[in-house]
Amino acid sequence: MNNQLDSIAPLREFVIGMTNLVSHESVEQELITKGSELLKTLIQSDSWLPEFCTIPHPEFYQQFLLHADPLGRFSVVSFVWGPGQKTPIHDHCIWGLIGMLRGMEQGQHYKRLPSGELEMDGPQTVLRQGDIEVVGPAVGDIHVVSNAIPDKTSISIHVYGANIGAVKRHTYDPITGKPKKFVSGYSSQQVPNLWDRSAEIRASLN
Amino acid sequence: MNNQLDSIAPLREFVIGMTNLVSHESVEQELITKGSELLKTLIQSDSWLPEFCTIPHPEFYQQFLLHADPLGRFSVVSFVWGPGQKTPIHDHCIWGLIGMLRGMEQGQHYKRLPSGELEMDGPQTVLRQGDIEVVGPAVGDIHVVSNAIPDKTSISIHVYGANIGAVKRHTYDPITGKPKKFVSGYSSQQVPNLWDRSAEIRASLN
Ligand SMILES: [Fe+3]
Ligand SMILES: [Fe+3]
Ligand SMILES: [Mg+2]
Repeated sequence: MNNQLDSIAPLREFVIGMTNLVSHESVEQELITKGSELLKTLIQSDSWLPEFCTIPHPEFYQQFLLHADPLGRFSVVSFVWGPGQKTPIHDHCIWGLIGMLRGMEQGQHYKRLPSGELEMDGPQTVLRQGDIEVVGPAVGDIHVVSNAIPDKTSISIHVYGANIGAVKRHTYDPITGKPKKFVSGYSSQQVPNLWDRSAEIRASLN
Repeated sequence: MNNQLDSIAPLREFVIGMTNLVSHESVEQELITKGSELLKTLIQSDSWLPEFCTIPHPEFYQQFLLHADPLGRFSVVSFVWGPGQKTPIHDHCIWGLIGMLRGMEQGQHYKRLPSGELEMDGPQTVLRQGDIEVVGPAVGDIHVVSNAIPDKTSISIHVYGANIGAVKRHTYDPITGKPKKFVSGYSSQQVPNLWDRSAEIRASLN
């Protein structure tokens, strides 16, 4: 089978693997450990990412949904960072994995003090191609993320333990630490078709 | 919540319902009966179908994938028939449901004689908006389908008991009945994003 006939296969295999995982496992630490292994394999190459999920917006970082589990057990999103783009300080309220696909991302974790103010938690982190970071209530859920390359697009693949487009979470005022409720949307009304196996199957007929 | 914010909700609810069904049921007759009930509800309205899944091709009937279950237990396809368009005589090798969404479709079932030749099986059928037909090895799997309206587009929603884009099946020569292996593809490399709940959730944030 010609690889070009089925360039999206690594993403399809990842989605099948994650679906099997959430069907048989519900312990969060196991989902994180085994999900990270699957994500590590996915981000070993980047030719599977459809073109329309790689396009930066001049002003805003983009969140292209790649797949959402219909039962809300996980979602997969392509984050596309244009030069200089940066999230607000935010949380997730569920577990999440960040896998660096192209370029480089920098992040800073925060913790909330009893006063409600935010304090940096550990040093600034840098994710390079192939690196994975974990976020979530169990390991540190508040952070800020930005493109670490000043003049190029960076892309990271995020996996969350829910449909992130339906999760009530928070941004935080950097000075006062005051939380504000928010929910993130998706940047496209379409997602990739992972399921056209016809070219591959056709090549195997009689 | 404003309906326009979430016009795709009926399709999302259908996909969730089908996913729950195939997660808890494996008896084919039950899948057909309960799947038909869900499909009946889905095709009561048609405003949920995204525009890009309604566009006829001047020459070929179109098959827009709406959703495929990652574990291959079902798929949902928008069939768009331009004026005069018609399938070859074909089978499915799995169960399938056809729900008429817009316009009208005519069909003819066939059975194979011991000689291998085809014979019409029952009268020509006509599907009108809201009607559902069942196909499959258990109930009659060989048929031909065409747009029953000579000058307009017709659209039917098909549900299959597998990813139909990966099923080896057959077309049949109308004279000799000779089968030829085939697999059908999909007409778009993208599928609708059913999972952006952010407008709805945002409206509920205080
Ligand atoms: Fe984050
Ligand atoms: Fe058919
Ligand atoms: Mg996945």
